[in-house]
Amino acid sequence: MAVSTVSVTGLTTFPLHEVYNNYGIILLEALFQIGGLGITMLATVGMVLARKRITLHQRQLIQIDMNQPRLSGTVRLAYSVFGLMMMLQFVFGILFSLYLYFERGYAHISKAFFEGFYIAISAVTNAGFDVTGTSIMPFKHDYFFLTTVIFLIGVGGIGFPVLTELREWAGTRLKQKSGQKFRFSLFVKLAVFFALLFFILGTLLILFSETRGAFAHRSLTDKLMTAMFYSASTRNAGLQLDSLSTFNTTTMLIFSLLMFIGASPSSVGGGVRTTTIGILILYMYSFIRGRRNVNIFGRQIGQEDIQKAVVVVNLSVLLCGTAILILSATEKQTLTALILEVTSAFGTTGLSLGITGSLSIVGKWVIIILMFIGRVGMLYMLMLFVSKRKKDLSYSFPTERVIIG
Amino acid sequence: MAVSTVSVTGLTTFPLHEVYNNYGIILLEALFQIGGLGITMLATVGMVLARKRITLHQRQLIQIDMNQPRLSGTVRLAYSVFGLMMMLQFVFGILFSLYLYFERGYAHISKAFFEGFYIAISAVTNAGFDVTGTSIMPFKHDYFFLTTVIFLIGVGGIGFPVLTELREWAGTRLKQKSGQKFRFSLFVKLAVFFALLFFILGTLLILFSETRGAFAHRSLTDKLMTAMFYSASTRNAGLQLDSLSTFNTTTMLIFSLLMFIGASPSSVGGGVRTTTIGILILYMYSFIRGRRNVNIFGRQIGQEDIQKAVVVVNLSVLLCGTAILILSATEKQTLTALILEVTSAFGTTGLSLGITGSLSIVGKWVIIILMFIGRVGMLYMLMLFVSKRKKDLSYSFPTERVIIG
Ligand SMILES: [K+]
Ligand SMILES: [K+]
Repeated sequence: MAVSTVSVTGLTTFPLHEVYNNYGIILLEALFQIGGLGITMLATVGMVLARKRITLHQRQLIQIDMNQPRLSGTVRLAYSVFGLMMMLQFVFGILFSLYLYFERGYAHISKAFFEGFYIAISAVTNAGFDVTGTSIMPFKHDYFFLTTVIFLIGVGGIGFPVLTELREWAGTRLKQKSGQKFRFSLFVKLAVFFALLFFILGTLLILFSETRGAFAHRSLTDKLMTAMFYSASTRNAGLQLDSLSTFNTTTMLIFSLLMFIGASPSSVGGGVRTTTIGILILYMYSFIRGRRNVNIFGRQIGQEDIQKAVVVVNLSVLLCGTAILILSATEKQTLTALILEVTSAFGTTGLSLGITGSLSIVGKWVIIILMFIGRVGMLYMLMLFVSKRKKDLSYSFPTERVIIG
Repeated sequence: MAVSTVSVTGLTTFPLHEVYNNYGIILLEALFQIGGLGITMLATVGMVLARKRITLHQRQLIQIDMNQPRLSGTVRLAYSVFGLMMMLQFVFGILFSLYLYFERGYAHISKAFFEGFYIAISAVTNAGFDVTGTSIMPFKHDYFFLTTVIFLIGVGGIGFPVLTELREWAGTRLKQKSGQKFRFSLFVKLAVFFALLFFILGTLLILFSETRGAFAHRSLTDKLMTAMFYSASTRNAGLQLDSLSTFNTTTMLIFSLLMFIGASPSSVGGGVRTTTIGILILYMYSFIRGRRNVNIFGRQIGQEDIQKAVVVVNLSVLLCGTAILILSATEKQTLTALILEVTSAFGTTGLSLGITGSLSIVGKWVIIILMFIGRVGMLYMLMLFVSKRKKDLSYSFPTERVIIG
């Protein structure tokens, strides 16, 4: 439970609303902040430390480089990000509260404020805990509400570097500094590009899979809104509009895929991260086109970053695969439920068919480890465990070609 | 059916022994030869052509290089391989026939010869079709028989380059040419190393998964023999000793993994190929150890071969994942059965829970395409579809670092 809160996954072993009272929930909200922002801050500090350590060895393979020469320092980034997230939650908390009170006819303004803030905070910090017992199901046909929540989930999952650069860009525009041309970094362009790509792809897949299933007899607008909501929510927040058991196996697998992909790096989300899998896709595309270099947005992606992406994605597949294999032996659940549970933990999403509570001890530990690795990120985990790094051998072996299948 | 025969998968839509008479089965055996050897021959010719085309463009990414300067030509390889395989089948066909007649008490010598040759041919050519209706279940506790079959499956799956080099090595030893030192190529070392590694790993996993399941109440020798048999058979031949439904979900997933890995390149087997996945593992291991180059057996693996391996493995995962997603929508089967079916087709193994016949039209086409790609190999498929290759851009973009999750 504690790991689940700090890793903002949303997998719980008992229904929250039955156990926690309002004060407990406010405590939870504070923990979300620590979870969603704190770990990122820790990671930022970790980055600074890592950079220091790595400059000692030249040509190291694992280097964390924020690649933002315009920022004066990492501490300024952390401050800037924290303020932005707090402001968003405050503004949208009030907005939701007023909306609930005036438009949705909540009897008590205190209840409206409580739930309004809860939803805003959950969406931005990627919490996805279910405190009302019905997630946000009462609002499943409320398009204004859904659009706003999708936007907030998107903001939380797009990553702090993107938000910071956007603010800087806005600052430059407002001040109208003559002669100063603002250029977004390659990372920000990639993060936005792949966030949109996976969002659209996810929406289409869900729409296609459920158009005659759970979405039958709904209007096209409703189908589209619901598909968009789940495409955003599964990669990140884990809020849900329906009981997951209404969906078919194909949709569960699509959800699992989206949860595995996850959000941007340096965001409140988890998973293998959009840009990481994106770079692998670009690499494969370049190979098929017969190109040696990976070029996009007028820039070339470095060999070391490509190597990192390859290792992170493939180790993540291996990790989740192993977890599914272990759970299939220890748990008496359907394979679909187990795949959903594993990817949900790894993507720190928190969607589940409700089997988290009935897992065996081994199963719970597997899920906890997955949540932790998913939140911290595979590359950081590698850095923690592999402290001593060797240099390249001073001599090199002759290269010999082999047959590839 | 025709695709299944030529791609030596062994997935059929009806029980063979009920439909085909003895003459039909002899025809099938001829088709196995065409399937197991013919496609490889075609591929060999394809390699020669590919090499010609590629020398036109320098620094192309997809190059097929047999890397055997000692061989005078590819044609000699093809001949040599064909003779070897035919000889093996003939020798072991006779051996099995005599064994069946004298030791197992077959009443008619013709039936003994028929089945003996059938088993030998099936094992070596990776066919795995079930003509007796019980696969080789009657021999499940016959350790002499099992060991021999495992050996033959191993020979078929180890790949032609390995067999040819072994023969050459044996020739050098016999002639005792003074001063001539034989060195096995890196590919052969990798192929043998990973074939053994995956064989041992598979055996242990199966043993561990079923020791209290399907293997309960069996002697340790019997458990080990059965696990070894399946570890060899799933990566390749697809012969079975038990009805697959006696195994638990975990074992099915292990089988699926082994079938996905498949056999060596340039062998009678399919799948993503042992050395390909092996090179990816070595690449990840080198990264974790902080090394830039991938060194093994005193040689360095080239960057282009690594890139090929990364693309082949990840595209194969994507392909099988997509197939499973499609089948989960079109078929009314358990996810486990579908995963087994998909990897069985891709690995051209032919193990199945018997759902092949009841697949929908879409499902059958998906399986046929998988069998074809699995047999021909992902890299060849890419070469077929991506005919026009561009050179690297004459100018290069500046490299920019990005954050990897
Ligand atoms: K979550
Ligand atoms: K087969």
